[in-house]
Amino acid sequence: MSSVQEWALFFDLYHPNMADAYWRLGKHQEQAVFNLYYRHNPFGNGFTVMAGLEKIVRYIENLRFGPEEVAYLRSLNLFAPGFLEYLAEFRFTGDIDAMPEGSIAFPNEPLVRVKAPIIEAMILEVFLANSMFHALIATKAARVVRAAQGRPVFEFGARRAQEVDAAVWGARAAVIAGCAGTSNVEAARRFGLKPVGTMAHLWMMSFDSELEAFRAWADAHPEGALFLVDTYDTLKSGLPNAIKVGQELTARGGTFLGIRLDSGRIPYLSVEARKMLDEAGFPDAKIMASSDLDEDRITTLLLEGARIDSFGVGTRLITAKDDPALGAVYKLVAREEQGKWIPVIKVSEDPEKVGLPGDNHPVRIYAKATGKAAGDLILPADQTLPAAGERITLQDPIHRSRQKTVKNFITRELLVPIFREGKRVYDLPDMPAIQAYYRQELETIWDTYRQLDEPEQYPVNPVPELVELQHRLIAERRARS
Amino acid sequence: MSSVQEWALFFDLYHPNMADAYWRLGKHQEQAVFNLYYRHNPFGNGFTVMAGLEKIVRYIENLRFGPEEVAYLRSLNLFAPGFLEYLAEFRFTGDIDAMPEGSIAFPNEPLVRVKAPIIEAMILEVFLANSMFHALIATKAARVVRAAQGRPVFEFGARRAQEVDAAVWGARAAVIAGCAGTSNVEAARRFGLKPVGTMAHLWMMSFDSELEAFRAWADAHPEGALFLVDTYDTLKSGLPNAIKVGQELTARGGTFLGIRLDSGRIPYLSVEARKMLDEAGFPDAKIMASSDLDEDRITTLLLEGARIDSFGVGTRLITAKDDPALGAVYKLVAREEQGKWIPVIKVSEDPEKVGLPGDNHPVRIYAKATGKAAGDLILPADQTLPAAGERITLQDPIHRSRQKTVKNFITRELLVPIFREGKRVYDLPDMPAIQAYYRQELETIWDTYRQLDEPEQYPVNPVPELVELQHRLIAERRARS
Repeated sequence: MSSVQEWALFFDLYHPNMADAYWRLGKHQEQAVFNLYYRHNPFGNGFTVMAGLEKIVRYIENLRFGPEEVAYLRSLNLFAPGFLEYLAEFRFTGDIDAMPEGSIAFPNEPLVRVKAPIIEAMILEVFLANSMFHALIATKAARVVRAAQGRPVFEFGARRAQEVDAAVWGARAAVIAGCAGTSNVEAARRFGLKPVGTMAHLWMMSFDSELEAFRAWADAHPEGALFLVDTYDTLKSGLPNAIKVGQELTARGGTFLGIRLDSGRIPYLSVEARKMLDEAGFPDAKIMASSDLDEDRITTLLLEGARIDSFGVGTRLITAKDDPALGAVYKLVAREEQGKWIPVIKVSEDPEKVGLPGDNHPVRIYAKATGKAAGDLILPADQTLPAAGERITLQDPIHRSRQKTVKNFITRELLVPIFREGKRVYDLPDMPAIQAYYRQELETIWDTYRQLDEPEQYPVNPVPELVELQHRLIAERRARS
Repeated sequence: MSSVQEWALFFDLYHPNMADAYWRLGKHQEQAVFNLYYRHNPFGNGFTVMAGLEKIVRYIENLRFGPEEVAYLRSLNLFAPGFLEYLAEFRFTGDIDAMPEGSIAFPNEPLVRVKAPIIEAMILEVFLANSMFHALIATKAARVVRAAQGRPVFEFGARRAQEVDAAVWGARAAVIAGCAGTSNVEAARRFGLKPVGTMAHLWMMSFDSELEAFRAWADAHPEGALFLVDTYDTLKSGLPNAIKVGQELTARGGTFLGIRLDSGRIPYLSVEARKMLDEAGFPDAKIMASSDLDEDRITTLLLEGARIDSFGVGTRLITAKDDPALGAVYKLVAREEQGKWIPVIKVSEDPEKVGLPGDNHPVRIYAKATGKAAGDLILPADQTLPAAGERITLQDPIHRSRQKTVKNFITRELLVPIFREGKRVYDLPDMPAIQAYYRQELETIWDTYRQLDEPEQYPVNPVPELVELQHRLIAERRARS
């Protein structure tokens, strides 16, 4: 397992540039609050599955600038010697709150909130935003798993991932959101995932005939074997040979586990294969499909009547092919100046890029009767909601017609404390706990927000006080420029 | 720097499954040849830039299965004890040939060729195919750099890369294909790249006014400063303030380096900014643009007259957004059985997936007069071409009309020896050498193959002997099934 410390310099050059400048100006101990969030759900999904927190926690716990790192920065001749001495002693001393992994998140609400001296907080930007790749893959996996309608989905993308860390952490993220296992052995070992594997075409090609290859495989796996049947001709050769060797295997006390289809017209082939297996007396032999799949293709396959028991999903899952970046942003929302907190807003000509100002926190509102989430409210840091109440209104700040009243509601803070004064105060859950948490989260979301195609937009509304603050700060900016 | 050994288990479960089965059958010492190649150039480009070899070499040199890895595999209860003992002693003992990094490659020709006992060769599959992410990013960078028409392009994508390794190795790949530097400090440190950085919006937001933020930045950078001018209003506020602080800076002996535009209508803003800078007496102050760019947007910006001196390119480069997987495949092409070599072909219902059988190697044909590449030939391993000759014909094996005769030609083997009997025989070049090699390669490619949009298809032709072998093997397969 790699030490996270090797990633201490994983930031953009402007981060130490700015940190050095804060240090020179004596501003480096001023406190700041940053929020990590994203603006659009990927893939047209109705939500995003939070993941990546474990990696972030390990990074922050181990964040030190060793002699090699400091020497490299010194060699650039950009930084004050005193700043480099500061870095050599650097420890993260701030507070972090975050949504636990497996949480269901929505656009424009903080996933991670960092409150720390400004250098400490801002220097985390690249690592934190980069780690939201985990959320991207978890969200893609959530879609694929939904499309499979209860059939197991296995992550098969290691060879096509964007480098090695994306493969192993991506496999973990996929399992968080419901994948049943991964082909990636290193990922399975590191995170205690279920490793799965069958046989490859190369096995088939390394014997003179298909029958010989299947027999050799069965000999090496006397307890049970699954056969890849599309090397020559799926129905004319692959199935008959697999059934023949399956019969030989069962006669010796082994199990004919099933077949894998990796090419061709899967609906037709799977229906015919199912018939042949059933007629040969193997109703329990499973059919796995793995041919450039994603949620759309799986939906189509099943619509067309494919008889598939499980799916192996590679490239399109592990690279999030149709939307390969979540576009997470990490924004300064409040800063301290001479002991006073100042809310900060980034104004932009693009209205959707105008953020919420000031330290804030998201709270989810549930209808007590159903246990379902009605919407999220974003509140200023100094404002809280009661744990329960009789009546609450959710109001879209821009589209006045989007309003919703929830009766007999309960509330939940979405961010939980992770670090306090640089010390971790959160126990990292294990994978089964994270998976269970995600399943539980999903249960609380109405199906209208979970649909794969054009889901309804879930309400995430800043409370009126926050909207007012936003308007006031924008007006002040305008007056000043 | 991470030890590569930690990636020993970075394969799919079916790899040790098959390796174990070969071992049980006593076939594990039979030699095999695998080729790593791809089928389509990404992004509609006319070629692919080879990259990733350095990572592959380090992996293979350090490939060992330590006690922890063997213990994990044992815990799966899938493998023969003798096979696990074999793995504990595992060393790669084979031969590897590859195209050097920076080579210009085309579809369906081997980028890497591995000849080794079958377990050793096949167990490399996932790592080798995964490393072709480097080639994907280098190819994307080649396009962006071409679009910039001589202006420097900087890689800015660390926060949006698919996990950390993709960010640092991707930055390196981008620099191989012509990027002038990267914002990624860790990548710069590891690979000796030029780190570049300016200032971020967070700096601007951490002061009460734009003028104050610029002045503080200039104070911290008395020798020279570049200003981000789009925080409030680019032309009404950003430029006037930057020019004012630029004048103060130059009055104190510093340099007003320039401005960065990160949003808005870049063509208009850049033209106006250029005028304002020139009129204020700063003709040498540069304009950098960095707003969700890629080769298409840069082409459009320049077509519309944008006055940009350099580009910062993020998400769309580092994730290869429009084509995020190269789809590299690693295919068995020949195997030894009882001391005899057998050419292997994978037949598929999809004609383009039918590979070339047998151990083979690609040779590039150049016209001596121009030094330009005319096409590549794929030859059986036991066949070579003379270093030069009077006349050679390139014949497309499927489309007979695609034929080309090259007079007064010279030839070059595209694969060079990397490992022999497990020992590295290749000196890894440093980055300047790789960059120079790529520039030299590019010089040999006619512009018709380099165009960004609908480039001509470069000829890659198997020689007639190889086509005949392919036809014979397909016929034999058909007869047998």
